[in-house]
Amino acid sequence: MIFFGGDWNPEQWPTEVWHEDVALMREAHVNLVTVGVFSWSRLQPAPDRFDFDWLDEALDLLRDNDIGACLATPTASPPPWFTDGLPVTADGVRLTYGSRDTYCVNAPAYLAASSRIASALAERYAHHPALRMWHVHNEYGTTCYCDHCAAAFRLWLSHAYGDPDALNAAWSTDFWSQRYASFDEVRPPRATQYLNNPAHLLDYRRFVSDAMLDHYVRQRDIVRPSGKPVTTNFALGGWVPVDHARWSREVDVVAVDDYPASVAGHLDDRAFVADLARGWATSAGWSGVSGSVGGSSALGWTGGSSVSGSVGGSSVPGRAGGKPWLVMEHAPGAVLEQGVVRALAEGEALAAAQTYTDRGATGVMYFQWRASRGGAEQWHPAIVPHEGSDTPVFREIASAGAALAGCTPSVESADRALLYDEQTMWAWQSPHLPTRQIDYEATCRRWHRALGPPVDVIPIDAPLDHYRVVAAPLLHLVPSATHRALRSYVEAGGTLILTFGSGLTDEHCRVTPGAFDDLLGIRTIRHLPGEGQLWLDDLEPAGAEVVLRASGDRPVVTEHRFGLGLARFVATDLEDLTPWLQPSSSGPAE
Amino acid sequence: MIFFGGDWNPEQWPTEVWHEDVALMREAHVNLVTVGVFSWSRLQPAPDRFDFDWLDEALDLLRDNDIGACLATPTASPPPWFTDGLPVTADGVRLTYGSRDTYCVNAPAYLAASSRIASALAERYAHHPALRMWHVHNEYGTTCYCDHCAAAFRLWLSHAYGDPDALNAAWSTDFWSQRYASFDEVRPPRATQYLNNPAHLLDYRRFVSDAMLDHYVRQRDIVRPSGKPVTTNFALGGWVPVDHARWSREVDVVAVDDYPASVAGHLDDRAFVADLARGWATSAGWSGVSGSVGGSSALGWTGGSSVSGSVGGSSVPGRAGGKPWLVMEHAPGAVLEQGVVRALAEGEALAAAQTYTDRGATGVMYFQWRASRGGAEQWHPAIVPHEGSDTPVFREIASAGAALAGCTPSVESADRALLYDEQTMWAWQSPHLPTRQIDYEATCRRWHRALGPPVDVIPIDAPLDHYRVVAAPLLHLVPSATHRALRSYVEAGGTLILTFGSGLTDEHCRVTPGAFDDLLGIRTIRHLPGEGQLWLDDLEPAGAEVVLRASGDRPVVTEHRFGLGLARFVATDLEDLTPWLQPSSSGPAE
Amino acid sequence: MIFFGGDWNPEQWPTEVWHEDVALMREAHVNLVTVGVFSWSRLQPAPDRFDFDWLDEALDLLRDNDIGACLATPTASPPPWFTDGLPVTADGVRLTYGSRDTYCVNAPAYLAASSRIASALAERYAHHPALRMWHVHNEYGTTCYCDHCAAAFRLWLSHAYGDPDALNAAWSTDFWSQRYASFDEVRPPRATQYLNNPAHLLDYRRFVSDAMLDHYVRQRDIVRPSGKPVTTNFALGGWVPVDHARWSREVDVVAVDDYPASVAGHLDDRAFVADLARGWATSAGWSGVSGSVGGSSALGWTGGSSVSGSVGGSSVPGRAGGKPWLVMEHAPGAVLEQGVVRALAEGEALAAAQTYTDRGATGVMYFQWRASRGGAEQWHPAIVPHEGSDTPVFREIASAGAALAGCTPSVESADRALLYDEQTMWAWQSPHLPTRQIDYEATCRRWHRALGPPVDVIPIDAPLDHYRVVAAPLLHLVPSATHRALRSYVEAGGTLILTFGSGLTDEHCRVTPGAFDDLLGIRTIRHLPGEGQLWLDDLEPAGAEVVLRASGDRPVVTEHRFGLGLARFVATDLEDLTPWLQPSSSGPAE
Repeated sequence: MIFFGGDWNPEQWPTEVWHEDVALMREAHVNLVTVGVFSWSRLQPAPDRFDFDWLDEALDLLRDNDIGACLATPTASPPPWFTDGLPVTADGVRLTYGSRDTYCVNAPAYLAASSRIASALAERYAHHPALRMWHVHNEYGTTCYCDHCAAAFRLWLSHAYGDPDALNAAWSTDFWSQRYASFDEVRPPRATQYLNNPAHLLDYRRFVSDAMLDHYVRQRDIVRPSGKPVTTNFALGGWVPVDHARWSREVDVVAVDDYPASVAGHLDDRAFVADLARGWATSAGWSGVSGSVGGSSALGWTGGSSVSGSVGGSSVPGRAGGKPWLVMEHAPGAVLEQGVVRALAEGEALAAAQTYTDRGATGVMYFQWRASRGGAEQWHPAIVPHEGSDTPVFREIASAGAALAGCTPSVESADRALLYDEQTMWAWQSPHLPTRQIDYEATCRRWHRALGPPVDVIPIDAPLDHYRVVAAPLLHLVPSATHRALRSYVEAGGTLILTFGSGLTDEHCRVTPGAFDDLLGIRTIRHLPGEGQLWLDDLEPAGAEVVLRASGDRPVVTEHRFGLGLARFVATDLEDLTPWLQPSSSGPAE
Repeated sequence: MIFFGGDWNPEQWPTEVWHEDVALMREAHVNLVTVGVFSWSRLQPAPDRFDFDWLDEALDLLRDNDIGACLATPTASPPPWFTDGLPVTADGVRLTYGSRDTYCVNAPAYLAASSRIASALAERYAHHPALRMWHVHNEYGTTCYCDHCAAAFRLWLSHAYGDPDALNAAWSTDFWSQRYASFDEVRPPRATQYLNNPAHLLDYRRFVSDAMLDHYVRQRDIVRPSGKPVTTNFALGGWVPVDHARWSREVDVVAVDDYPASVAGHLDDRAFVADLARGWATSAGWSGVSGSVGGSSALGWTGGSSVSGSVGGSSVPGRAGGKPWLVMEHAPGAVLEQGVVRALAEGEALAAAQTYTDRGATGVMYFQWRASRGGAEQWHPAIVPHEGSDTPVFREIASAGAALAGCTPSVESADRALLYDEQTMWAWQSPHLPTRQIDYEATCRRWHRALGPPVDVIPIDAPLDHYRVVAAPLLHLVPSATHRALRSYVEAGGTLILTFGSGLTDEHCRVTPGAFDDLLGIRTIRHLPGEGQLWLDDLEPAGAEVVLRASGDRPVVTEHRFGLGLARFVATDLEDLTPWLQPSSSGPAE
Repeated sequence: MIFFGGDWNPEQWPTEVWHEDVALMREAHVNLVTVGVFSWSRLQPAPDRFDFDWLDEALDLLRDNDIGACLATPTASPPPWFTDGLPVTADGVRLTYGSRDTYCVNAPAYLAASSRIASALAERYAHHPALRMWHVHNEYGTTCYCDHCAAAFRLWLSHAYGDPDALNAAWSTDFWSQRYASFDEVRPPRATQYLNNPAHLLDYRRFVSDAMLDHYVRQRDIVRPSGKPVTTNFALGGWVPVDHARWSREVDVVAVDDYPASVAGHLDDRAFVADLARGWATSAGWSGVSGSVGGSSALGWTGGSSVSGSVGGSSVPGRAGGKPWLVMEHAPGAVLEQGVVRALAEGEALAAAQTYTDRGATGVMYFQWRASRGGAEQWHPAIVPHEGSDTPVFREIASAGAALAGCTPSVESADRALLYDEQTMWAWQSPHLPTRQIDYEATCRRWHRALGPPVDVIPIDAPLDHYRVVAAPLLHLVPSATHRALRSYVEAGGTLILTFGSGLTDEHCRVTPGAFDDLLGIRTIRHLPGEGQLWLDDLEPAGAEVVLRASGDRPVVTEHRFGLGLARFVATDLEDLTPWLQPSSSGPAE
């Protein structure tokens, strides 16, 4: 079975519409709906007053119709009465509510209010028969720079570094007179006169990710006694201060929201996100720190089948320990492309859904069920549009529901992997890089298309030994454990492809010149941003064979036997990647 | 007689220049000058000190030369000593003076200071023989978000909605957890984390318009006992939070400032503004709430001729009850085009003036008389430029003055009208529309060119029955009264043209799917922004005839007999509008 | 001897690297390194604690290797413990440290902290044998709008104008009701509602320049008793609020940081900056107010040769009294071009250095010696890049060092000069000019290329009599002394070339129509921005000869005999300037 449905916001409609909704859900083979994401002001109209009657009625209606509820804690949208704990920008502007996401996860008042509403929901609905899953919060992503954050950041730094000198070394504070005598002197990277310290910026993003994760874990632990799986929906994008690979260890099912950027490329975009989410879910299983309660069986599937059982004869190692993943939101039948809501052609909605299920999705959910009459997203695509159910979109989605009703998620085993690292993405966003023209995300998506399908997209700490080819384009930020892991992989026979922009720094943005030279069998002489295509590394072979040269005879692609494997290097942004994705002929996986 | 002249700022010059000015004014047939717009810091150099001597002398000089004065209250530019009541941006930045327009119309200190200087002027000059008209304030337009505004906004909302539940329904606050328990919880739409609620944004613009109108009315009522007509000059543009159709009821003469955007299109631009201003003036007369004191005769024209008398044999209904209108400011001989002050070709200054008078303008005024030696607008075009009166510009304007001296304003009766609604313009500026590519203002101007001349541009509550054709492009925001009026118009035999983007929402930005389907004889299946030209509505005929199809056979223009008239629909942004502007052959106006 | 070296930041490296550094410096013929620019947090780790041990060791090491130290006061980068006296933006945002340059030169706490660290350095190192020069602060440029600045600005204005009425006249405050009753009412040009008063803006930049100069002079006077020359490195660019022509009087050697904008044009860019710096240095000698201690001999050159001696047989008048100049920073082997660090081709680093020395530079210094491992400028080009000394960049710079080792600065005498005025550059940045398309800096650079080499770039108060041709493109802001000087120059036989946009205003931004008409023998009828190329002045000859006409017969270039000389006028932005740069045939310099 595959979860199929979307966000249902009954509080926006009179109850007669609810009954129409439920009838249409059954028609569309909907088996799960997300409820309550934006309901805080209805559930708790005043600090000391709760109103659950309407939600009781809605959940009962779902139960009566065999539709599961993915019950949200509404903490991403505090109500108007919540005025403490609003976020502050880097410029010092304290934001007001009036939109959504106006919270600071480090503000005591917000933490208290979050726990209170989550506890009230957990207490009331833990055993409601419609309950299938908990959906904590929504699209974590609000970065705040307030004094609560400053205090929490200092604490986080003191835990991370122990003493200020370690911080000074990690942040290279001797440049520009930034040496700290005490953690108390550190501030968030608020507005300043000129370029920020890149290590400061990077650690602040890590801190924000951890602070939000802490907020998630508090709520997860409140709702967990219900025995139902708990998740939160991941927002993707360069602005999001969440390290999803790490967060994946703390959710019971990896849930992603996927909003492709163009009609033309939407299936490619979805394939990348699907492979990425599966990579997070799979790798999270390897970790010893997962807080998962009972794994996939807690998802309540009929027959107790687990994800590992559903991937057929695949022998993907580690899969058994992995977690399920699903798409919690995508737009039905349309894509927001440069500010225009563009309709997909007929059949593309099903193609979109199958792009996910072909990559192992255990759920295909939409935002949202019924188009809102008002509010900031009134024009957001919906399964039931303003024009009602006698419309192309509803028919398409209902037909997709029918098509998926008999399916189980499956995935084709891949022997190629792409390393993808959000901290490296953040590092590429830093000011004063040697070029501002690098788009890490877009480059990874391009390599993903060239490599697959099938291809796995995996975090930098995932096991590599079962892949014949691993590509790691633009891997800017390389911790020593990753350096070791990549060498071990090649030594054991793997084929590794690195590019210009790889290994530029350690995990604290400190330059590590020639960090991969031994592995690649080259000597890096200098980086030449703006030359070749986008960038060209000036290098000379030191054991490697030059297999492609540019005009002027500069090496562009090199190959180096290293142990039993091969380390290939691509020194510029080649247009045609295909010839350079082949495994070494001596790899162990053949 | 037509008013002819401009802003005269004698306080910037020594008195010998005044005498040269007045001689040149007579040479140029100037009969009215605006005085005192930016004089507050000269009239009241300190909170407790006034200096009227210089203004006495200037007005006496005008009187001695038979030049009328349009006397301004200077409240748009508070002096340096005024430090309470400065405006605050949505980001919370309290602005300082140092420019102009630094005021908050909801700040008690500002209201008090405004009334005080207005009273002092009224007391001293109510009976000065040069006085022809009062010019309250200047180009109302400063939007503020301070706590005074917050309090006034809450009061405004409580008057508008009565109880919070009505507000919640109007604003669709159940989306994103914005339900208010009390008006006290509402804030101005200050900086927030993500998209604002569009109804909240729209009501804030309405509130700001009303708050500024209240400030205007206070001053109007202070100067009114003089018996002279009172007006304020309307600034036009997408940023202006003034609903001019409504304001027109409260002025004795509609006065507009017109600054076209390009040399190539300046006459078209002026024609649109002229037809628009006349529409406001005419429709304001229909309203029962006008505070006008004695109508046009108060303008003091020789012979007491009224505007309704001056439009010749025209039988435009309602005209007799309308108000006069004039151009209070336009730039002599030049246009500011994309940051460049570009000179008009020879003869174009007169053509500009006649574009106004051919559309009924009772005055053609310029900003400004003599170019300022310093200050932020020292390069603004002037009748007497820096180079003096022996210059092409002065000769052009003087010659235009001579040409207009013998004229009376006239207007050709139109049987076509364009509906234009500033609240709809504001609605199209909202974030998260299905496309951001709509430019309401530019589209209306394009339809205006296609429809006329002669064409009337009228508010949505204007009577329609005497028009053969009414076009309402992109009429986003449609109150139920407008829905009724448009149907009545067609039923009675009129030809109505609606387009894609029409009737999307009610007056609270709540989506009203298929709101015009009955009238248009179609079924709207869905909107397809980004398809066709700019947008395409996917529809099927339901009584209408399809008179134009796109490739792929989609209906693009439909016509529907409705009562005695015809409702035509244009489903995309057609390049050639002309074929679709014809009236039905059975209309009553033939 | 020519100073050769760069910024050395030993505090970023362990001492074993210092020894490698010094050996490499000797290899590269380095004889001067800038030390301590960003060391405040190391020198004074806490308000009450100093640590000079590491700097003692570093300076001793330099001394032992015959390398001079240009010792910086570190006040441009206050340490984390410095929390009073941070700068405030025009929007009221108080910046935090976390970058560099976070200071307000008008804050008492900052002034006290600056003097304290400067005094400590002066006391300890005044007689250190490695000391060759003092480098006060770094790239002055932080504009602040705090209340300390407001108070200091008022004081500055009261000194400049004496009484408020003089200020009102200079600022034309009668426009927009800005008349001040007292200096106490004036504020910095903080965020306001609309356009600022241009005279207010301009005076604020002048004030900031003077306030920063005062900060410089305080430190200069602290370190001066050492007997070593004192300078600060000038940052160039439109955003910098420093009037370098005036500042040049207060430094012992003019030092500029030069960062060209493109690889293709880098030599032209450097030539302009070199000629400009030499012009400042030379003209500073003419002033009676220079605080220079002993002139160039204080620089400690072997043999006591002075700059005036080193320019060979040139008889450039006034040169003997001038000061030396040097390049304090430029990037070794690369250029930052639109966000990309682009490498120069082989040999270009030497060509760059020689572009400076051919124009009289007494020093060619780089930023920085060794690439920083971390921090915001880790990718800034360096003499010793991350990859070490066995690299093209180090070899290039070392070879340039060898090439320059035997040189003395020289300069070819020029009989053409370009007037360049930073206050005019600021004036062209003002809002509401008749066009926003003027780029003063780029235009001057274009004229500079057309005029030279050899060409002098000189301030508006420099003597002109020894030039055959003086060009002053776009000279917006013309004080009466300059009007007189230009006329005297032409009367005495010089050839002066003026262009459209010249003489538009006096030094207070007050329009001065036809200000050059008498000199040019024309009558300026009007300015036509946007016509011709970029701008066209509509004029008629009044004594001048029209030597070039545009289509339509408009005069474009005129020539007027004035006294013994010639005044040429170029009325539009001609592409080919060459034909119009020739001197009059009757000039005295022939």
